[in-house]
Amino acid sequence: MSSDRLGETLLPKKIALPVFASDPLSSVAYAPDEILLTLGLAGGALALTNSWKVALAVVVVMVVVVASYRQNVYAYPSGGGDYEVATVNLGPRAGVGVASALLVDYVLTVAVSISSGVQNAAAAFEFVRGHEVEVAVGLIVLLTAVNLRGVRESGSLFALPTYLFMASIITMAVVGAVRHERGTLPLAESAGLELLPEPGYEALGTLAMAFLFLRAFSSGCAALTGVEAISNGVPAFRRPKSRNAATTLLLMGIIAITLLVSMVTLARWTGVQFAEDPATQLAIDGRLVGDDYVQDTVMGQVSKAVFEGFPMGVVVVSLVTGLILVLAANTAFNGFPVLGSILARDGYMPRQLHTRGDRLAFSNGIIILAGAAISLVVVFDAEVTRLIQLYIVGVFVSFTLSQLGMVRHWNRHLRLETRPAARRDMVRRRAISTVGAVVCGVVLIVVVVTKFVHGAGFAIAAMAVLFVIMTRISRHYARVSKELQVDPGETDHTRLPSRVHAIVLVSRIHKPALRALAYARATRPSRLEAVTVSVDPAETAALQDEWERLRIPVQLKALDSPYREVTRPVVEYVKSLRSDNPRDLVVVYVPEYVLGRWWEQVLHNQSALRLKTRLRFMPGVMVSSVPWQLSSSAGQEPALDAPAPGDVRRGDE
Amino acid sequence: MSSDRLGETLLPKKIALPVFASDPLSSVAYAPDEILLTLGLAGGALALTNSWKVALAVVVVMVVVVASYRQNVYAYPSGGGDYEVATVNLGPRAGVGVASALLVDYVLTVAVSISSGVQNAAAAFEFVRGHEVEVAVGLIVLLTAVNLRGVRESGSLFALPTYLFMASIITMAVVGAVRHERGTLPLAESAGLELLPEPGYEALGTLAMAFLFLRAFSSGCAALTGVEAISNGVPAFRRPKSRNAATTLLLMGIIAITLLVSMVTLARWTGVQFAEDPATQLAIDGRLVGDDYVQDTVMGQVSKAVFEGFPMGVVVVSLVTGLILVLAANTAFNGFPVLGSILARDGYMPRQLHTRGDRLAFSNGIIILAGAAISLVVVFDAEVTRLIQLYIVGVFVSFTLSQLGMVRHWNRHLRLETRPAARRDMVRRRAISTVGAVVCGVVLIVVVVTKFVHGAGFAIAAMAVLFVIMTRISRHYARVSKELQVDPGETDHTRLPSRVHAIVLVSRIHKPALRALAYARATRPSRLEAVTVSVDPAETAALQDEWERLRIPVQLKALDSPYREVTRPVVEYVKSLRSDNPRDLVVVYVPEYVLGRWWEQVLHNQSALRLKTRLRFMPGVMVSSVPWQLSSSAGQEPALDAPAPGDVRRGDE
Repeated sequence: MSSDRLGETLLPKKIALPVFASDPLSSVAYAPDEILLTLGLAGGALALTNSWKVALAVVVVMVVVVASYRQNVYAYPSGGGDYEVATVNLGPRAGVGVASALLVDYVLTVAVSISSGVQNAAAAFEFVRGHEVEVAVGLIVLLTAVNLRGVRESGSLFALPTYLFMASIITMAVVGAVRHERGTLPLAESAGLELLPEPGYEALGTLAMAFLFLRAFSSGCAALTGVEAISNGVPAFRRPKSRNAATTLLLMGIIAITLLVSMVTLARWTGVQFAEDPATQLAIDGRLVGDDYVQDTVMGQVSKAVFEGFPMGVVVVSLVTGLILVLAANTAFNGFPVLGSILARDGYMPRQLHTRGDRLAFSNGIIILAGAAISLVVVFDAEVTRLIQLYIVGVFVSFTLSQLGMVRHWNRHLRLETRPAARRDMVRRRAISTVGAVVCGVVLIVVVVTKFVHGAGFAIAAMAVLFVIMTRISRHYARVSKELQVDPGETDHTRLPSRVHAIVLVSRIHKPALRALAYARATRPSRLEAVTVSVDPAETAALQDEWERLRIPVQLKALDSPYREVTRPVVEYVKSLRSDNPRDLVVVYVPEYVLGRWWEQVLHNQSALRLKTRLRFMPGVMVSSVPWQLSSSAGQEPALDAPAPGDVRRGDE
Repeated sequence: MSSDRLGETLLPKKIALPVFASDPLSSVAYAPDEILLTLGLAGGALALTNSWKVALAVVVVMVVVVASYRQNVYAYPSGGGDYEVATVNLGPRAGVGVASALLVDYVLTVAVSISSGVQNAAAAFEFVRGHEVEVAVGLIVLLTAVNLRGVRESGSLFALPTYLFMASIITMAVVGAVRHERGTLPLAESAGLELLPEPGYEALGTLAMAFLFLRAFSSGCAALTGVEAISNGVPAFRRPKSRNAATTLLLMGIIAITLLVSMVTLARWTGVQFAEDPATQLAIDGRLVGDDYVQDTVMGQVSKAVFEGFPMGVVVVSLVTGLILVLAANTAFNGFPVLGSILARDGYMPRQLHTRGDRLAFSNGIIILAGAAISLVVVFDAEVTRLIQLYIVGVFVSFTLSQLGMVRHWNRHLRLETRPAARRDMVRRRAISTVGAVVCGVVLIVVVVTKFVHGAGFAIAAMAVLFVIMTRISRHYARVSKELQVDPGETDHTRLPSRVHAIVLVSRIHKPALRALAYARATRPSRLEAVTVSVDPAETAALQDEWERLRIPVQLKALDSPYREVTRPVVEYVKSLRSDNPRDLVVVYVPEYVLGRWWEQVLHNQSALRLKTRLRFMPGVMVSSVPWQLSSSAGQEPALDAPAPGDVRRGDE
């Protein structure tokens, strides 16, 4: 896409909603499961009667977060997202912290969404069961391939499945509600089972019970991941950008809450018993169900109950759920390389990740993301319950720092603003951000405390490692930049070397050597000589004879190599030239062959390469490669860099 | 070691013998085991009474091979070995065939010797048992490290353990013989067991029995590997080289035969029952011994019987046997890289493997050998019996082709020789070589036929692959050489480009860019311009402003990049310059930073590297790298190439 045309593909709200909402909406496929099974550790009765309380707490947090982010959307419409808000208001270290957290969470979004998608698919398609890890890895590889190729039209591609998903769940909720009213809603398969508490959870004290509720709440907060996506995507909206984005955010919040509440209510009505460890927790007639029992997801069990007598309904729910989870994973495939590119621009990541025109930049990001996600899926056996313990920490670090930043933002603006109406508005907005910061901070503490030993520690460690790496990279670039800076008034580097001493390296008389000689002569150096390293006296003598015979008008100097080395004599000779005439420039011409195939490359140019690497460390020495194109090289040029695959979300930031 | 001093470290016979003999002598540690267990497939009685027949057949082959190789030593004293003999007399394809076979066999020498050494060590040191693979891999890694560092004084290092080994075995034989005469030689531990035939071998027909004998003979021929080492090492002997080498060869043959016959005889006297599969073949009082039975090597069992009441003797035999086996493996660490270097010289291997002065050349060979040997040890669980099935094929391919070559050699010389005495001598020698070729050929056929399905097929496949690779490499070098050849009378390449058009790539104004400009100006090109790629119009404008401000006396040209690429606009621009003035030389100056640490390198110069790679494919374009040494680069130069680690065996070839 040409620069001129960027920004033309702006999104109307009806497309923006599904594009940005797949991640938060899809979490309704696993968040209720996690709430139920965590509470279920203390027994089935507790879980069924209390899950709505936990869900309500999640809804409250969702309201607060949506309200807060509506402020962000107006204040920072440039698309920098939480990273920008934190950097501007809290300083670069906070920004890097947010970035580390988000990078880790992108990886987890892929791992969790795909794992959940596969578990959902298993409810409808028996053959997936027992092969979850393979299917999940296969899906990630597929997503990677699609993203490496670049998806242009992802807007409408996102729209259909997301709307289908919303429609399916809401239809299910309505059908469920009607049947519940009429008393014809059947119970779930697992309703007849008894959910036993795990050992150690049989008779919990008040404090332990509270802790269990907080753990369930932490897992339920997975519903909030991806809410920040809209604030990164403001530039992709149609004008008025900020208002449209804020409206979309609100819509998304309403729908997410509706879906979550629907699912938790349906699960309660159908009496779903959902265990962390079905084999040891579920019993029928006093006997454990054992290892053969297959526990469907809550979504699967609910849909089977609601659509009893209409199996197509079950299949459709399962299909669209799987689809939206894959789309949710795909949002990370967009977000991760974009964030990587922004970080590279700011000097926290290798600079080549920024070059917009460079397909490699995005490809590297995509491949790193996929590799990390695949590792997680394999290590955690594609089990959502284990992966979810690592999740959310990153998002809430980001939420909290972002909202803290917003509080500072309003404080700063309040200092400059004098008009009372504007000030009142700002005070109101600051209050919202403050509530957001406090709530997110509390949730963050709850998540860390309740999940640290269950896996959140790993996520935090990964963030710390990323933070250190990015800080180091940034320090490195700063140091280099300072060292390379041209001091005002400095003329030292514009002073020209007094003379040019050219050396052409010759090992045999062949076309590349003659071309190198011709090119060196064409540059008319102050002094020109051909140099060969005499490893074998007989070969050197033969070379000298042929040199004379061909009447090559350049002197050939043979460097002794008593130890039959090639690099050292040349380096020593160049060093001696340098010390004899420190103000001269020494140019070393190296004849090289260009070959077409990689394995051919292995067979040639090795000593030239080593010599060049060595000479780079000597100031005042320049190495000129004179390539000779062998016929096998024709048409084998590496492809030119092409525009990165872009989709609408990259908009014009 | 300087070229001048090479050849001073020549070996007296008393050192040469242990240096070259460790490989063939050490095989007495496993060859009797293999003979016994192969015969033992048809039951213990058969094995005990017939092992001497098989050993005798091996002795006959040994006599023939030693006699034949004494001819080689006189006729080809240059140290090229079988590869040279085959190449000179049978043509390059035969030479490459011999080389493939020897390379494969070097790998197997390491794997078999080390595995056998570990199994022997287990007889004296209980803690090794059950960890054979780990210990074997550890030993190979240790050998690799020692060889990578380079062993100077390996002559005397080899002498002591080899003589100790000979002395130990001969002492054991003498003690055993005396005790046998006196009737005080105890039976081996396993003598009381019954060795049952394997299923399918209970009642073999004559043909099947003959086949079993041939299989035992094939394994016994492992005693012959390494005999060719002396013919490779003639240049390392003191004068008269050939005669000393021939004498050493004879001595080695006599000692090897003595040791082999001693071991087989002692095993018979002590009644060793040695099974391929102890758990299912060995029985006591009609009950199988089962998986718990630990079967010592024949050497271990014999030494325990002979030195009954003197455990130190057992430990010494076990120790020196382990030691000589490690030394035997070490000979391959010398032979493999030397052969690789010779093959590289002749264009069958990547040329950089030849550069004598290049430590890397030998290091690569050593690492490839170690890697291949470790793979074999791991795949075959460090079990000699399984590895030995792959062994010997290579050696006998080499023996056979070499002796065939010798027959041709004498034929050729007979055509030119007229003196009757000399002719008689030649006819005699040709007869010896002919017998050698026929016997080795027959053994080769026996080995291939009896062992193909047991593993020899893999070895042959590996040889075939190496053969194809080497042939391809040779063809590639020939094609390139032809393409690069300067035709007589050709003046095209000495014609100078009419003008030089210099381009300095600039992305920012910093010291490296200013240095590149200064260097480019120093070469006084016909035309000079600075070029920048305009990815961001604002940045480009800022660059141009600063350019003016600094009054840099070179014009700055901005290349448009509508798709925000870097490489393509430069390549297109250079292309346009080339087509406007095809006889001009275009020199592209690329400012680069030199950094000290590898990870710093990752953070810089990526687009410069890509551009340079791309420009190499354009004729008439030369790329000059202008390095700027950052402070972190100081003292981080890669080490200069140093002489390869050499030991006495590399002599002065």
